Amino acid sequence: MPDTPLPKHTDLSSIGEFGLIRRIDELVATRAEDADLSANLIKGIGDDAAVFKTGAGKLQLLTTDSLVEGVHFDLTYTSMKHLGWKSIVASISDIAAMGGLPRYALVALAIPQKISVEMVEEFYQGAAFAGKKHACLIIGGDTAASLSGMMVTVTITGEVSPERVRYRSGAKPGDYLCVSGHLGASVAGLKILQREKTRFAESGNGEFRPKLDPYREVLEKHLMPNPRRDLAKIFAGEIDVNALIDISDGLASEVGHLCAQSNVGAAVWEHNLPLIAATQLVAGEFAESATEYALYGGEEYELLFSISEGEFAKLERLSNDVTVVGRVTEKEQGIRWVKESGEELPLEPGGWNHFGR
Amino acid sequence: MPDTPLPKHTDLSSIGEFGLIRRIDELVATRAEDADLSANLIKGIGDDAAVFKTGAGKLQLLTTDSLVEGVHFDLTYTSMKHLGWKSIVASISDIAAMGGLPRYALVALAIPQKISVEMVEEFYQGAAFAGKKHACLIIGGDTAASLSGMMVTVTITGEVSPERVRYRSGAKPGDYLCVSGHLGASVAGLKILQREKTRFAESGNGEFRPKLDPYREVLEKHLMPNPRRDLAKIFAGEIDVNALIDISDGLASEVGHLCAQSNVGAAVWEHNLPLIAATQLVAGEFAESATEYALYGGEEYELLFSISEGEFAKLERLSNDVTVVGRVTEKEQGIRWVKESGEELPLEPGGWNHFGR
Repeated sequence: MPDTPLPKHTDLSSIGEFGLIRRIDELVATRAEDADLSANLIKGIGDDAAVFKTGAGKLQLLTTDSLVEGVHFDLTYTSMKHLGWKSIVASISDIAAMGGLPRYALVALAIPQKISVEMVEEFYQGAAFAGKKHACLIIGGDTAASLSGMMVTVTITGEVSPERVRYRSGAKPGDYLCVSGHLGASVAGLKILQREKTRFAESGNGEFRPKLDPYREVLEKHLMPNPRRDLAKIFAGEIDVNALIDISDGLASEVGHLCAQSNVGAAVWEHNLPLIAATQLVAGEFAESATEYALYGGEEYELLFSISEGEFAKLERLSNDVTVVGRVTEKEQGIRWVKESGEELPLEPGGWNHFGR
Repeated sequence: MPDTPLPKHTDLSSIGEFGLIRRIDELVATRAEDADLSANLIKGIGDDAAVFKTGAGKLQLLTTDSLVEGVHFDLTYTSMKHLGWKSIVASISDIAAMGGLPRYALVALAIPQKISVEMVEEFYQGAAFAGKKHACLIIGGDTAASLSGMMVTVTITGEVSPERVRYRSGAKPGDYLCVSGHLGASVAGLKILQREKTRFAESGNGEFRPKLDPYREVLEKHLMPNPRRDLAKIFAGEIDVNALIDISDGLASEVGHLCAQSNVGAAVWEHNLPLIAATQLVAGEFAESATEYALYGGEEYELLFSISEGEFAKLERLSNDVTVVGRVTEKEQGIRWVKESGEELPLEPGGWNHFGR
């Protein structure tokens, strides 16, 4: 006998597309707790397009991001709530990477037949929860059938004042290169989930319980990451960064983008990479390198930024969650990886690249 | 020997995700011919999010729409250029259905391995061409691998003045119910494409040439529809409509939405439905009813609107492409289908419903 009753499974065909939209509306409409977001929303879900007002004098930011089943997520170990959460976070992170704050979200879902009404509701609960935590309101979207896997495309609008918008370009030789949070944990969490999935399949019976406790921090980082809206708020206020990008394809790849668009080089220092013990534990168990997780692992949703020494000194007083990982140099010096031993190598991108099959 | 050389097929893996993004940027960046759209775009493709300015005092419109291979399109008879065109048009139509004009677009693609670099380029050529024709600029998006079919999600922003935004609600008893263009042609075009695909498969040799000439108008309506930006411009200016929606799931379904949200009933008149000869020809060949195509066929991208008699008299002087198809009534009278014979029946929605498998 199973420990828990089987979850309720209502087929989408029994309520139809319009029944589903009504349920989604109920789930997301109650989350409009941010007074400014609510006041500026004229029309949410239920018409041909959403309608809203923008802040006076603000620039608008717009980004979209797709998550594809089998490519970006595996439903055997990703709950629908986590998927909903992460799909919102991925786009908020892109807004933060422009120095902006998120405003409104549209969620487009392509839903295969195996997905029940309850699962879609859980997805929106996770999405609405992420929106609530990070002051972003879901105001529309699309639902379509899919013949194969599930797919999620989230679009998010954001705002930033014209003098505070920041690009990948703008880094200056002499700047510190900094990252928020710690690196490599998301891929470490993914490796644990994949290993426990394999062990479960090999155990051949329902008694198997995955061993997850020691990995709590890396699993949370993979399944329920937080975008750095907190830092975007600081950058929108007193701290002036020169270039800004979020880390979605690994540090090495993002340093490459930032340097290319800023027309500079960089030195990245191994000895300063922020790694937590749980990431190192996982790397050890797989006989791999936590440093490589940090350089080439994706889905960090942390920020990489270039900042003058003077501004960094001010920033340190406001946040204890930023680390200097290198320095911007002249372009001619290239992008160098400075090992703890003092040895220097060219830093190749090598992050996650779709289509590099 | 085939008549034409095989098309060039470059695998996406040979140029990678960033190579692809550079090519897309080149295809869409040259299309910024509308001076206002260009002047207000601060940053397009190539950073974490697009950045733009909005019109002073305008409300913002935002809509997203997904097209899924095997559900919304079939690549055996849909060229990539047509697919790109239609994916932009579908969302512009939603903006027009709010009384607004489109501004900027984001295009998210999930691309399976069978799709070449050249095919993706053709997709963006079609998308950029639609954008150019209807004054909408592609400023960003996302590209991801897909393990199964291709999927397109387009998000479009639009603008409208606060006094001119129009909803599905707002229809008043006594209003005329009007549609733009003609109805039923898109599904007629689809039926021809499906029939010729079957004939081609059954012919068993490469000599088969589909017979398409008599159906040119319905094929064009299905493959390369135009959104009614022209009418949205008129509604943004001198003509005041009371309720507005676009026809994407069939007239019957959209009348149902408009009546439900306006809290009214309606009479829809068979004798006034705008049908073209090619649509009637196709219905005849299939021993089906062109009227049913008009009521239940989808993907029309025409507008349905409720308008006072006085305003309609003014509108008729500005456009010869609108037809009165019925009248708004009190809610208690329900939604009635008035046949040419004078017989009246309740009009059931029955349009395209995802998940009604």
